[in-house]
Amino acid sequence: MNWLNSDLVGYIAATLTTSAFIPQALMTWKNKRAEGVSLSMYVILITGVILWLTYGIMLSAWPVIIANVITLFLTIFILLMKIVYK
Amino acid sequence: MNWLNSDLVGYIAATLTTSAFIPQALMTWKNKRAEGVSLSMYVILITGVILWLTYGIMLSAWPVIIANVITLFLTIFILLMKIVYK
Repeated sequence: MNWLNSDLVGYIAATLTTSAFIPQALMTWKNKRAEGVSLSMYVILITGVILWLTYGIMLSAWPVIIANVITLFLTIFILLMKIVYK
Repeated sequence: MNWLNSDLVGYIAATLTTSAFIPQALMTWKNKRAEGVSLSMYVILITGVILWLTYGIMLSAWPVIIANVITLFLTIFILLMKIVYK
């Protein structure tokens, strides 16, 4: 598939899977309710994102590091709202 | 960081960020309610996961392909419940 640049596909994919958490963060913040959001999901997800970040640091892979730092902030924010708002 | 294998960290990270969606899928399925789940989040996320899958196929990277096929099924299932249950 030389007609399509794999790096470009990876960067767009990373941007989307990172920014996907923005509407959930905004929605939960606005509604001040989080009972539909799974606590377990965010605990497991955050653990996984911290490991992805570790992986990125080990390989000095900056796109992995940057995407996961942003995802980490967004998912921790959603987790904190889940704990506060229930 | 030679004392720690980066591939192993990557595999554990992928397993966690994929399986994180299982508790959300089960919770939404059990409650038959999805008003706390963001529709936009899952639309953006699924688009991103499809691109990660494309990236994995382009590079013949099986761990990326397998993790994203599973994530795709789980997130499409959550999206369908969001549409059905509102």
